[in-house]
Amino acid sequence: MTSQHPAPRTRLGRAPERGHHDRQTIDAILDAGFVCHLGFVVDGHPTVVPTIYGRDGDTVYVHGSVASRAMRADVLDVCLTVTHVDALVLARSGFHHSLNYRSVMVLGEARRVTDGDEAMRALALITDHVVPDRWAHTRPPSRKEMAATAVLALPLDLASAKVRAHGVSDDGEDLDGPWWAGLVPLATVAGAAEPDPLLPPGTAVPDHVRDWRPR
Amino acid sequence: MTSQHPAPRTRLGRAPERGHHDRQTIDAILDAGFVCHLGFVVDGHPTVVPTIYGRDGDTVYVHGSVASRAMRADVLDVCLTVTHVDALVLARSGFHHSLNYRSVMVLGEARRVTDGDEAMRALALITDHVVPDRWAHTRPPSRKEMAATAVLALPLDLASAKVRAHGVSDDGEDLDGPWWAGLVPLATVAGAAEPDPLLPPGTAVPDHVRDWRPR
Repeated sequence: MTSQHPAPRTRLGRAPERGHHDRQTIDAILDAGFVCHLGFVVDGHPTVVPTIYGRDGDTVYVHGSVASRAMRADVLDVCLTVTHVDALVLARSGFHHSLNYRSVMVLGEARRVTDGDEAMRALALITDHVVPDRWAHTRPPSRKEMAATAVLALPLDLASAKVRAHGVSDDGEDLDGPWWAGLVPLATVAGAAEPDPLLPPGTAVPDHVRDWRPR
Repeated sequence: MTSQHPAPRTRLGRAPERGHHDRQTIDAILDAGFVCHLGFVVDGHPTVVPTIYGRDGDTVYVHGSVASRAMRADVLDVCLTVTHVDALVLARSGFHHSLNYRSVMVLGEARRVTDGDEAMRALALITDHVVPDRWAHTRPPSRKEMAATAVLALPLDLASAKVRAHGVSDDGEDLDGPWWAGLVPLATVAGAAEPDPLLPPGTAVPDHVRDWRPR
Protein backbone atom coordinates (compact mmCIF):
# COMPACT_ATOMS: atom_id res chain seq x y z
CA MET A 1 0.00 0.00 0.00
CA THR A 2 1.27 3.46 -0.81
CA SER A 3 -0.04 6.82 0.22
CA GLN A 4 -1.25 9.36 -2.32
CA HIS A 5 2.03 11.25 -2.52
CA PRO A 6 4.05 13.25 -2.94
CA ALA A 7 1.55 16.03 -2.36
CA PRO A 8 2.89 19.59 -2.26
CA ARG A 9 2.86 19.93 1.53
CA THR A 10 4.84 16.72 1.99
CA ARG A 11 7.24 17.08 -0.91
CA LEU A 12 10.76 17.07 0.45
CA GLY A 13 12.72 20.21 -0.26
CA ARG A 14 15.99 19.25 1.38
CA ALA A 15 17.94 16.01 1.10
CA PRO A 16 15.25 14.41 -1.08
CA GLU A 17 17.24 11.16 -1.12
CA ARG A 18 16.23 10.79 2.55
CA GLY A 19 12.54 11.00 1.72
CA HIS A 20 10.08 8.14 1.64
CA HIS A 21 6.39 8.14 0.95
CA ASP A 22 5.76 4.39 1.01
CA ARG A 23 3.47 3.26 3.75
CA GLN A 24 5.65 0.33 4.74
CA THR A 25 8.45 2.69 5.76
CA ILE A 26 6.03 5.14 7.38
CA ASP A 27 4.18 2.45 9.34
CA ALA A 28 7.40 0.81 10.55
CA ILE A 29 8.64 4.13 11.96
CA LEU A 30 5.30 4.92 13.60
CA ASP A 31 5.09 1.42 15.08
CA ALA A 32 8.65 1.60 16.44
CA GLY A 33 7.82 4.47 18.81
CA PHE A 34 5.10 5.70 21.10
CA VAL A 35 5.82 9.40 21.72
CA CYS A 36 5.06 11.95 19.03
CA HIS A 37 5.32 15.72 18.98
CA LEU A 38 1.96 17.16 18.00
CA GLY A 39 1.97 20.62 16.49
CA PHE A 40 -1.07 22.84 16.09
CA VAL A 41 -1.81 26.55 15.82
CA VAL A 42 -3.31 28.50 18.72
CA ASP A 43 -4.23 32.14 18.08
CA GLY A 44 -1.84 32.13 15.14
CA HIS A 45 1.08 30.77 17.17
CA PRO A 46 2.63 27.31 16.85
CA THR A 47 2.34 24.92 19.80
CA VAL A 48 4.19 21.61 20.03
CA VAL A 49 3.34 19.11 22.74
CA PRO A 50 4.68 15.62 23.35
CA THR A 51 2.03 12.94 23.60
CA ILE A 52 1.56 9.22 23.04
CA TYR A 53 -0.22 7.76 20.02
CA GLY A 54 -1.39 4.55 18.42
CA ARG A 55 -1.92 3.47 14.83
CA ASP A 56 -4.91 1.53 13.49
CA GLY A 57 -4.35 0.86 9.80
CA ASP A 58 -4.63 4.20 8.03
CA THR A 59 -5.38 6.24 11.16
CA VAL A 60 -3.22 7.60 13.97
CA TYR A 61 -5.01 8.26 17.24
CA VAL A 62 -3.94 10.64 19.98
CA HIS A 63 -5.75 11.60 23.14
CA GLY A 64 -5.81 14.42 25.61
CA SER A 65 -7.87 16.17 28.20
CA VAL A 66 -11.11 17.87 27.23
CA ALA A 67 -9.79 20.70 29.41
CA SER A 68 -7.45 21.52 26.52
CA ARG A 69 -9.08 23.96 24.14
CA ALA A 70 -7.29 22.47 21.13
CA MET A 71 -8.59 19.01 21.97
CA ARG A 72 -12.17 20.25 22.13
CA ALA A 73 -12.23 21.39 18.49
CA ASP A 74 -14.23 19.31 16.01
CA VAL A 75 -11.28 19.41 13.66
CA LEU A 76 -7.70 20.37 14.46
CA ASP A 77 -5.10 21.14 11.80
CA VAL A 78 -2.00 19.30 13.03
CA CYS A 79 1.48 18.15 12.21
CA LEU A 80 2.31 14.94 14.07
CA THR A 81 6.02 14.15 14.05
CA VAL A 82 7.72 10.98 15.33
CA THR A 83 11.51 10.84 15.51
CA HIS A 84 13.92 8.06 16.41
CA VAL A 85 17.58 9.04 16.72
CA ASP A 86 19.82 6.08 15.87
CA ALA A 87 23.33 7.50 15.85
CA LEU A 88 25.51 10.57 16.03
CA VAL A 89 27.27 11.09 12.70
CA LEU A 90 30.58 12.79 13.46
CA ALA A 91 32.14 14.01 10.26
CA ARG A 92 35.55 15.56 9.65
CA SER A 93 33.88 18.91 8.90
CA GLY A 94 31.39 20.59 11.18
CA PHE A 95 29.20 21.07 8.12
CA HIS A 96 28.76 17.36 7.45
CA HIS A 97 27.90 16.44 11.02
CA SER A 98 24.51 14.80 11.15
CA LEU A 99 22.35 12.25 12.90
CA ASN A 100 21.16 8.91 11.70
CA TYR A 101 17.44 9.01 12.31
CA ARG A 102 14.03 7.80 11.24
CA SER A 103 11.29 10.40 11.26
CA VAL A 104 7.67 10.55 10.14
CA MET A 105 5.60 13.67 9.66
CA VAL A 106 1.82 13.35 9.36
CA LEU A 107 -0.02 16.47 8.25
CA GLY A 108 -3.72 17.02 8.12
CA GLU A 109 -6.96 17.58 9.90
CA ALA A 110 -7.39 15.53 13.05
CA ARG A 111 -11.04 14.72 13.65
CA ARG A 112 -12.47 14.72 17.16
CA VAL A 113 -13.85 11.22 17.78
CA THR A 114 -17.39 11.53 19.05
CA ASP A 115 -18.50 7.91 18.82
CA GLY A 116 -18.08 6.29 22.22
CA ASP A 117 -17.15 2.88 20.86
CA GLU A 118 -14.51 4.29 18.53
CA ALA A 119 -13.11 6.41 21.36
CA MET A 120 -12.88 3.34 23.62
CA ARG A 121 -11.20 1.30 20.88
CA ALA A 122 -8.75 4.16 20.27
CA LEU A 123 -7.79 4.37 23.94
CA ALA A 124 -7.20 0.62 24.03
CA LEU A 125 -5.14 0.93 20.86
CA ILE A 126 -2.99 3.77 22.22
CA THR A 127 -2.42 1.90 25.49
CA ASP A 128 -1.51 -1.32 23.71
CA HIS A 129 0.68 0.59 21.25
CA VAL A 130 2.88 1.65 24.19
CA VAL A 131 2.75 -1.72 25.99
CA PRO A 132 1.22 -4.59 24.00
CA ASP A 133 -1.50 -6.46 25.89
CA ARG A 134 -1.65 -3.78 28.60
CA TRP A 135 -5.30 -2.75 28.09
CA ALA A 136 -6.64 -6.20 29.01
CA HIS A 137 -4.69 -5.95 32.27
CA THR A 138 -6.15 -2.65 33.46
CA ARG A 139 -9.39 -1.44 34.98
CA PRO A 140 -11.55 -0.22 32.07
CA PRO A 141 -12.43 3.48 31.94
CA SER A 142 -15.51 4.76 33.69
CA ARG A 143 -18.14 6.89 31.99
CA LYS A 144 -16.72 9.92 33.80
CA GLU A 145 -13.18 9.16 32.67
CA MET A 146 -14.35 8.78 29.07
CA ALA A 147 -16.14 12.11 29.28
CA ALA A 148 -12.91 13.77 30.44
CA THR A 149 -10.90 12.33 27.57
CA ALA A 150 -10.75 13.70 24.05
CA VAL A 151 -9.63 11.42 21.25
CA LEU A 152 -8.40 12.69 17.89
CA ALA A 153 -8.15 10.63 14.70
CA LEU A 154 -5.64 11.66 12.04
CA PRO A 155 -5.59 9.95 8.63
CA LEU A 156 -2.25 8.91 7.17
CA ASP A 157 -3.05 10.40 3.75
CA LEU A 158 -0.48 13.18 4.10
CA ALA A 159 2.40 11.32 5.66
CA SER A 160 6.05 11.23 4.75
CA ALA A 161 9.18 9.74 6.22
CA LYS A 162 12.78 10.84 6.31
CA VAL A 163 15.54 8.36 7.04
CA ARG A 164 19.29 8.73 7.30
CA ALA A 165 20.95 5.39 7.88
CA HIS A 166 24.49 5.41 6.57
CA GLY A 167 28.01 6.36 7.50
CA VAL A 168 29.93 9.61 7.40
CA SER A 169 29.72 11.62 4.16
CA ASP A 170 32.73 13.89 4.10
CA ASP A 171 34.15 15.99 1.29
CA GLY A 172 36.91 14.18 -0.58
CA GLU A 173 39.49 16.86 0.21
CA ASP A 174 38.89 16.41 3.95
CA LEU A 175 39.67 12.68 3.99
CA ASP A 176 43.40 13.18 4.49
CA GLY A 177 42.91 15.66 7.33
CA PRO A 178 43.70 15.07 11.02
CA TRP A 179 40.05 14.79 12.11
CA TRP A 180 38.48 11.64 13.50
CA ALA A 181 35.15 10.64 11.95
CA GLY A 182 32.64 7.94 12.67
CA LEU A 183 29.33 7.03 14.22
CA VAL A 184 28.18 6.72 17.81
CA PRO A 185 25.13 4.41 17.89
CA LEU A 186 22.27 5.30 20.22
CA ALA A 187 19.51 3.13 21.62
CA THR A 188 16.72 3.31 24.15
CA VAL A 189 16.75 0.60 26.80
CA ALA A 190 14.34 -0.41 29.54
CA GLY A 191 15.36 -1.09 33.11
CA ALA A 192 13.75 -3.71 35.32
CA ALA A 193 10.12 -3.04 36.19
CA GLU A 194 9.61 -1.27 39.53
CA PRO A 195 6.41 -2.58 41.16
CA ASP A 196 4.15 -0.08 42.93
CA PRO A 197 4.87 -0.37 46.69
CA LEU A 198 1.10 -0.64 47.28
CA LEU A 199 0.85 -4.00 45.48
CA PRO A 200 0.39 -7.04 47.73
CA PRO A 201 3.82 -8.39 48.71
CA GLY A 202 5.03 -11.12 46.37
CA THR A 203 2.95 -9.99 43.39
CA ALA A 204 4.71 -11.22 40.25
CA VAL A 205 5.52 -8.85 37.39
CA PRO A 206 3.18 -9.97 34.60
CA ASP A 207 4.61 -11.26 31.32
CA HIS A 208 3.40 -8.29 29.25
CA VAL A 209 5.44 -5.97 31.48
CA ARG A 210 8.45 -8.21 32.09
CA ASP A 211 8.85 -8.92 28.38
CA TRP A 212 8.35 -5.34 27.22
CA ARG A 213 11.22 -3.81 25.26
CA PRO A 214 11.54 -0.55 23.34
CA ARG A 215 11.12 -1.43 19.66
CA MET B 1 17.59 33.29 37.96
CA THR B 2 13.96 32.97 37.07
CA SER B 3 12.17 33.76 33.85
CA GLN B 4 9.42 36.37 33.68
CA HIS B 5 6.57 33.90 34.15
CA PRO B 6 4.00 32.66 34.11
CA ALA B 7 2.93 34.60 31.06
CA PRO B 8 -0.45 33.73 29.57
CA ARG B 9 0.93 31.64 26.68
CA THR B 10 3.03 29.50 29.00
CA ARG B 11 0.58 29.20 31.88
CA LEU B 12 -0.12 25.55 32.44
CA GLY B 13 -3.72 24.58 32.02
CA ARG B 14 -3.48 20.90 32.86
CA ALA B 15 -1.65 19.21 35.72
CA PRO B 16 -0.28 22.55 36.98
CA GLU B 17 1.65 20.69 39.69
CA ARG B 18 3.89 19.42 36.91
CA GLY B 19 4.75 22.96 35.79
CA HIS B 20 7.98 24.81 36.41
CA HIS B 21 9.06 28.21 35.30
CA ASP B 22 12.39 28.42 37.12
CA ARG B 23 15.38 28.68 34.83
CA GLN B 24 17.38 26.11 36.75
CA THR B 25 14.84 23.41 35.88
CA ILE B 26 14.44 24.66 32.32
CA ASP B 27 18.19 24.87 31.67
CA ALA B 28 18.84 21.42 33.13
CA ILE B 29 16.27 19.85 30.79
CA LEU B 30 17.58 21.73 27.76
CA ASP B 31 21.17 20.79 28.61
CA ALA B 32 20.27 17.11 29.08
CA GLY B 33 19.25 16.67 25.44
CA PHE B 34 20.25 17.70 21.97
CA VAL B 35 17.21 17.04 19.76
CA CYS B 36 14.25 19.38 19.86
CA HIS B 37 11.03 19.49 17.88
CA LEU B 38 10.68 22.91 16.30
CA GLY B 39 7.18 24.04 15.42
CA PHE B 40 6.32 26.92 13.12
CA VAL B 41 3.45 27.96 10.90
CA VAL B 42 3.65 27.70 7.10
CA ASP B 43 0.73 29.10 5.09
CA GLY B 44 -1.40 28.81 8.21
CA HIS B 45 -0.52 25.15 8.80
CA PRO B 46 1.60 23.81 11.66
CA THR B 47 4.94 22.19 10.82
CA VAL B 48 7.06 20.28 13.33
CA VAL B 49 10.61 19.25 12.46
CA PRO B 50 13.23 17.54 14.60
CA THR B 51 16.55 19.37 14.80
CA ILE B 52 19.53 19.78 17.09
CA TYR B 53 20.08 22.83 19.26
CA GLY B 54 22.46 24.45 21.71
CA ARG B 55 22.01 26.85 24.61
CA ASP B 56 24.13 29.90 25.36
CA GLY B 57 22.88 31.48 28.57
CA ASP B 58 19.48 32.97 27.80
CA THR B 59 19.44 31.97 24.13
CA VAL B 60 18.73 28.71 22.32
CA TYR B 61 20.27 28.37 18.87
CA VAL B 62 19.10 26.13 16.06
CA HIS B 63 20.36 25.90 12.51
CA GLY B 64 19.14 24.76 9.17
CA SER B 65 19.59 25.13 5.46
CA VAL B 66 19.00 28.48 3.78
CA ALA B 67 17.12 26.38 1.21
CA SER B 68 14.32 26.17 3.80
CA ARG B 69 11.90 29.03 3.38
CA ALA B 70 11.13 29.15 7.10
CA MET B 71 14.83 29.44 7.93
CA ARG B 72 15.22 32.40 5.57
CA ALA B 73 12.73 34.61 7.43
CA ASP B 74 14.12 37.49 9.48
CA VAL B 75 11.90 36.41 12.35
CA LEU B 76 10.13 33.10 12.81
CA ASP B 77 7.37 32.50 15.37
CA VAL B 78 8.26 29.15 16.88
CA CYS B 79 7.55 26.66 19.61
CA LEU B 80 10.68 24.69 20.47
CA THR B 81 9.93 21.58 22.54
CA VAL B 82 12.44 19.23 24.15
CA THR B 83 11.22 16.00 25.75
CA HIS B 84 12.99 13.30 27.73
CA VAL B 85 10.95 10.19 28.53
CA ASP B 86 12.17 8.61 31.78
CA ALA B 87 9.67 5.83 32.51
CA LEU B 88 6.42 4.20 31.57
CA VAL B 89 3.91 4.68 34.38
CA LEU B 90 1.60 1.66 34.31
CA ALA B 91 -1.38 2.29 36.55
CA ARG B 92 -4.18 -0.03 37.57
CA SER B 93 -6.63 2.00 35.47
CA GLY B 94 -6.09 2.89 31.85
CA PHE B 95 -6.99 6.45 32.76
CA HIS B 96 -4.06 6.92 35.14
CA HIS B 97 -1.45 5.53 32.80
CA SER B 98 1.23 8.11 32.18
CA LEU B 99 4.87 8.69 31.46
CA ASN B 100 7.54 10.09 33.67
CA TYR B 101 9.13 12.80 31.58
CA ARG B 102 10.93 16.11 31.55
CA SER B 103 9.83 18.56 28.89
CA VAL B 104 10.57 22.17 28.03
CA MET B 105 8.59 24.38 25.70
CA VAL B 106 10.13 27.62 24.47
CA LEU B 107 7.77 30.00 22.69
CA GLY B 108 8.65 33.16 20.87
CA GLU B 109 10.20 34.84 17.90
CA ALA B 110 13.38 33.28 16.68
CA ARG B 111 15.67 35.86 15.13
CA ARG B 112 17.73 35.04 12.04
CA VAL B 113 21.38 35.55 13.00
CA THR B 114 23.00 37.78 10.40
CA ASP B 115 26.30 38.52 12.14
CA GLY B 116 28.93 36.13 10.84
CA ASP B 117 30.79 35.89 14.14
CA GLU B 118 27.63 35.14 16.12
CA ALA B 119 26.59 32.53 13.54
CA MET B 120 30.01 30.85 13.78
CA ARG B 121 29.87 30.87 17.59
CA ALA B 122 26.35 29.42 17.46
CA LEU B 123 27.39 26.57 15.18
CA ALA B 124 30.30 25.74 17.49
CA LEU B 125 27.89 25.86 20.43
CA ILE B 126 25.35 23.56 18.79
CA THR B 127 28.08 21.09 17.79
CA ASP B 128 29.63 21.10 21.27
CA HIS B 129 26.17 20.84 22.85
CA VAL B 130 25.74 17.46 21.14
CA VAL B 131 29.33 16.28 21.73
CA PRO B 132 31.39 18.45 24.09
CA ASP B 133 34.77 19.47 22.65
CA ARG B 134 33.81 18.28 19.16
CA TRP B 135 34.11 21.64 17.37
CA ALA B 136 37.83 21.94 18.10
CA HIS B 137 38.31 18.52 16.50
CA THR B 138 36.64 19.30 13.17
CA ARG B 139 37.53 21.19 10.02
CA PRO B 140 36.07 24.70 10.44
CA PRO B 141 33.31 25.78 8.06
CA SER B 142 34.17 27.43 4.78
CA ARG B 143 32.68 30.72 3.65
CA LYS B 144 30.46 28.75 1.26
CA GLU B 145 29.24 26.43 4.01
CA MET B 146 28.46 29.39 6.24
CA ALA B 147 26.47 31.01 3.42
CA ALA B 148 24.41 27.83 3.06
CA THR B 149 23.60 27.68 6.78
CA ALA B 150 20.88 29.66 8.52
CA VAL B 151 21.14 30.14 12.28
CA LEU B 152 18.17 31.14 14.44
CA ALA B 153 18.40 32.57 17.97
CA LEU B 154 15.47 32.10 20.34
CA PRO B 155 15.38 33.86 23.71
CA LEU B 156 14.36 31.86 26.76
CA ASP B 157 11.95 34.57 27.97
CA LEU B 158 8.85 32.47 27.26
CA ALA B 159 9.99 29.08 28.47
CA SER B 160 8.29 26.59 30.74
CA ALA B 161 8.98 23.07 31.90
CA LYS B 162 6.77 20.15 32.76
CA VAL B 163 8.09 17.29 34.84
CA ARG B 164 6.50 14.09 36.06
CA ALA B 165 8.89 12.15 38.27
CA HIS B 166 6.95 9.99 40.70
CA GLY B 167 5.26 6.66 41.04
CA VAL B 168 1.84 5.39 40.08
CA SER B 169 -1.12 7.55 41.14
CA ASP B 170 -4.14 5.28 41.19
CA ASP B 171 -7.61 5.88 42.59
CA GLY B 172 -7.98 4.54 46.12
CA GLU B 173 -10.79 2.18 45.16
CA ASP B 174 -8.57 0.50 42.54
CA LEU B 175 -5.80 -0.42 44.95
CA ASP B 176 -7.39 -3.74 45.94
CA GLY B 177 -8.00 -4.75 42.31
CA PRO B 178 -6.24 -7.52 40.41
CA TRP B 179 -4.19 -5.17 38.23
CA TRP B 180 -0.41 -4.93 38.35
CA ALA B 181 0.99 -1.40 38.57
CA GLY B 182 4.45 0.05 38.51
CA LEU B 183 7.12 1.82 36.51
CA VAL B 184 9.36 0.70 33.67
CA PRO B 185 12.42 2.97 33.60
CA LEU B 186 13.77 4.07 30.22
CA ALA B 187 17.17 5.38 29.28
CA THR B 188 19.17 6.26 26.19
CA VAL B 189 22.52 4.52 25.88
CA ALA B 190 25.44 4.88 23.48
CA GLY B 191 27.17 1.96 21.82
CA ALA B 192 30.88 1.83 21.05
CA ALA B 193 32.05 4.37 18.50
CA GLU B 194 32.23 3.04 14.92
CA PRO B 195 35.20 4.65 13.14
CA ASP B 196 34.78 5.69 9.51
CA PRO B 197 36.37 2.95 7.34
CA LEU B 198 38.25 5.69 5.45
CA LEU B 199 40.32 6.65 8.51
CA PRO B 200 43.96 5.52 8.46
CA PRO B 201 44.21 2.06 10.03
CA GLY B 202 44.98 2.17 13.73
CA THR B 203 43.55 5.65 14.29
CA ALA B 204 42.54 5.88 17.96
CA VAL B 205 39.07 7.01 18.97
CA PRO B 206 39.67 10.44 20.55
CA ASP B 207 38.77 11.03 24.19
CA HIS B 208 35.90 13.41 23.46
CA VAL B 209 34.18 10.65 21.44
CA ARG B 210 35.18 7.66 23.57
CA ASP B 211 34.00 9.37 26.78
CA TRP B 212 30.73 10.72 25.33
CA ARG B 213 27.56 9.59 27.07
CA PRO B 214 23.94 10.66 26.72
CA ARG B 215 23.23 13.06 29.59
